[in-house]
Amino acid sequence: MNFKLRKARQTDMESVLLLIKELATFEKEPNAVQITAENLVEDGFGNKQAFQVIVAESDDEIIGMTLFYSRYSTWKGKSIHLEDLIVQQKHRGKGIGSALYSEVLKYAHKNNYKRVAWEVLDWNKVAIDFYRSTGAKVFDNWKIAQIDEQALKRYVDNI
Amino acid sequence: MNFKLRKARQTDMESVLLLIKELATFEKEPNAVQITAENLVEDGFGNKQAFQVIVAESDDEIIGMTLFYSRYSTWKGKSIHLEDLIVQQKHRGKGIGSALYSEVLKYAHKNNYKRVAWEVLDWNKVAIDFYRSTGAKVFDNWKIAQIDEQALKRYVDNI
Repeated sequence: MNFKLRKARQTDMESVLLLIKELATFEKEPNAVQITAENLVEDGFGNKQAFQVIVAESDDEIIGMTLFYSRYSTWKGKSIHLEDLIVQQKHRGKGIGSALYSEVLKYAHKNNYKRVAWEVLDWNKVAIDFYRSTGAKVFDNWKIAQIDEQALKRYVDNI
Repeated sequence: MNFKLRKARQTDMESVLLLIKELATFEKEPNAVQITAENLVEDGFGNKQAFQVIVAESDDEIIGMTLFYSRYSTWKGKSIHLEDLIVQQKHRGKGIGSALYSEVLKYAHKNNYKRVAWEVLDWNKVAIDFYRSTGAKVFDNWKIAQIDEQALKRYVDNI
């Protein structure tokens, strides 16, 4: 299959949002996406750039994307967080996902980041096996904790 | 106990590093800390600030700290990652940890962040119970994946 990877442009954000919504449905959270294409443009292309996006394009259509940004490990130093890596359902199994993954890893290595991290659902065995095959570790003993906007407001209002 | 919270200064980074090393020992990874105080000064106080630190101070001694930075959720938007929250062993149980935690949550709420996230070891039941009591969720179905500097180099060298 013919596809190319390139840095995303502002005008890609509508297509990127469609991919985000497709993944949320795959992850059984179809209503969790509160973000808009305008948010993505503002946060990704403004003067305080919160993330970078690389897209996979075929016949002028965006068929995959990866979104990532810097984090900081107090053990290792600057790291990259791979927040999303999404390929359209109908284009899976064609090497697009692993090409996007490699692109982020190449970026991290080239720019001297000490680690790349991401999160994966425990039932997504295909993904976990792929990550392990590339030299990544998938940890069993760390859990993710989050406080969302509503709970945050409740907590802050009560202290 | 008398303590105050304040933004960290460059000159606090030696003390902050000691706390990071104390936590690494508690987490059974005493040799995992590769970072230096110079790295922390450069990365936290340079022109591209990778994180913020709030310290707890008592009698001119740094007895606790929290380090955090911005992330981005493609579902919710801008979020805060609470990377570390550490209180000196001998000063635990005096409300310093929850004061630091509240400070980060207040910062996130005030600055309109949509979420605060962090990671916790599954055997650290005291911490998990505390987080849940504040309205946070601790997820069982997400795993953390990481590729470290050496594996990253190996992978990139082979593609």
